[in-house]
Amino acid sequence: MASTRASGTNAVRYGTMSDNILALAVVLPGGEVIHAGTRARKSSAGYDLTHLFVGAEGTLGIITEVTLKLQGLPEAMSAAIVGFAEFDAAVKAVTEIRQAGIPVARIEFLDEVMVTAVNQFSGLSLIERPTLFLEFHGSTTTVHEYAEMAGEITHAWGGSDFQWAVDTGERNALWKARHNAYFASLAFRPGSRSLTTDVCVPISRLAECIIKTKHDLSQSFLTAPIVGHVGDGNFHLLILVDPAKPEDIAEAERLNERLVERALEMGGTITGEHGVGLGKMKFMKAEHGDGVLAVMHAIKRAIDPQNLMNPGKMLPAL
Amino acid sequence: MASTRASGTNAVRYGTMSDNILALAVVLPGGEVIHAGTRARKSSAGYDLTHLFVGAEGTLGIITEVTLKLQGLPEAMSAAIVGFAEFDAAVKAVTEIRQAGIPVARIEFLDEVMVTAVNQFSGLSLIERPTLFLEFHGSTTTVHEYAEMAGEITHAWGGSDFQWAVDTGERNALWKARHNAYFASLAFRPGSRSLTTDVCVPISRLAECIIKTKHDLSQSFLTAPIVGHVGDGNFHLLILVDPAKPEDIAEAERLNERLVERALEMGGTITGEHGVGLGKMKFMKAEHGDGVLAVMHAIKRAIDPQNLMNPGKMLPAL
Repeated sequence: MASTRASGTNAVRYGTMSDNILALAVVLPGGEVIHAGTRARKSSAGYDLTHLFVGAEGTLGIITEVTLKLQGLPEAMSAAIVGFAEFDAAVKAVTEIRQAGIPVARIEFLDEVMVTAVNQFSGLSLIERPTLFLEFHGSTTTVHEYAEMAGEITHAWGGSDFQWAVDTGERNALWKARHNAYFASLAFRPGSRSLTTDVCVPISRLAECIIKTKHDLSQSFLTAPIVGHVGDGNFHLLILVDPAKPEDIAEAERLNERLVERALEMGGTITGEHGVGLGKMKFMKAEHGDGVLAVMHAIKRAIDPQNLMNPGKMLPAL
Repeated sequence: MASTRASGTNAVRYGTMSDNILALAVVLPGGEVIHAGTRARKSSAGYDLTHLFVGAEGTLGIITEVTLKLQGLPEAMSAAIVGFAEFDAAVKAVTEIRQAGIPVARIEFLDEVMVTAVNQFSGLSLIERPTLFLEFHGSTTTVHEYAEMAGEITHAWGGSDFQWAVDTGERNALWKARHNAYFASLAFRPGSRSLTTDVCVPISRLAECIIKTKHDLSQSFLTAPIVGHVGDGNFHLLILVDPAKPEDIAEAERLNERLVERALEMGGTITGEHGVGLGKMKFMKAEHGDGVLAVMHAIKRAIDPQNLMNPGKMLPAL
């Protein structure tokens, strides 16, 4: 959970996972256990080690306890689905919903390929077109108002009427289908594996970024469903490959590289949620430059001088 | 602004200042300029240097540029004042408003001493009793509903009817009076200076913490108005001293020490917003322990090996 900084699909209303972590217990390379942070909601007492260890991908220590902010259950929740003829209209509607300040609890984009995969896997019968899943939290009155405002915006962008999932069973079925998007994608091309990648760009560039990415995909022999936590400017490609075919792997890597380069050109980041690991090490220099990487290396050496913790990951050699 | 991690009074709805910082330019001790973070709203690409430099109090480098998340202006805003006979009822009402999930934009507590000081300084005529200033942001409908829900809770805790400040002029006058609380406090004891201190505790302990602090103050020959960003569990004491009187300074330090020790006993932090500087260095070990301090020192040495940046501040010798 805490291996990357920004996991989770509730970022719009509740912040990223990192924002919700108050304190950690961490085992350091020498075996000592430290406790970073307290149960207080904010602190200015020294360096923010909590946020340093979260997202370090285990390269500085092993997180063994996490203290989270609790979020109360809202009085009312409702979920809605809205389909679009064109995916850029869907993304632009998201941008406008964000700009209008509507506090959407979740707002997820599925492209028509992902909707098809989800239908097949989860037995849904959604129309196979670019689709937004939205969820609103609040009181009965506010949830109704948010939904109405969001509905007016999506309608203005050519979206369908909202298809509602109000009771708990319907909502859970919908989100379960969304959460199974990964397995739905694998099942969409039987025998495939997914090279799953993500980027995050400034929200003002999101529509353009997805449009260009879809254009790349239309020219490729591979299929890659798209799902996005678009309220944050973050989206995922699940590039489906036959692991036995080197040409599939090569093409998936080419598509991933195009995506990452585009995100950087747009002032974004090479990964919004998934982290760096081994796969994205080669892009770290392009995002950060030598100066930032030198600081990261200095921190790594300072805390783990013998390079015991997840060695060889995340930080490329300078 | 970015010298500590958690400045500002809008933490309830909009997060701390630190939560709103996306990227930084920092001049390192060697003179090199680095850029940490991007304009994307989240990232998992390497160590979170942005949050490390924010709140480092200049001990790792000098922040020269800050990229902030923008927040849209809400459609509607309203501010309300509510007074209480007893301050613990005021604090408990805040706790319940938070637990009810009402998205208050600002919720500020002033004790009766601070209200008196603010009245004198800003020409207001508030009743001199523990008082909450609240502000609600949203649509016309939601602002109305939030205010009604909050009003029911404060009423149940014996609060007065809400005194409204709806138009922009009234709201600004109210918040200007609140923002001038520091100067109002100084004017309250002419010729005084303020030893200003703050702590932050888990919200569940806030009422108890303020009650015990008020008890300490009632036994002291010094006066110390209290103002709190109580939605976060954070509050400030402005301990008024005659800088020419060593007994005033000694008593202010004793009160500060009692406050900090109590916050730590309650699982809180020695400072929510103000930072450590020189004054709170002696409490760093009690909050963090040797293990965390050793990590902070290691980071300091790694980034500033010659100890050029704000030397001797924040980190006590091990």
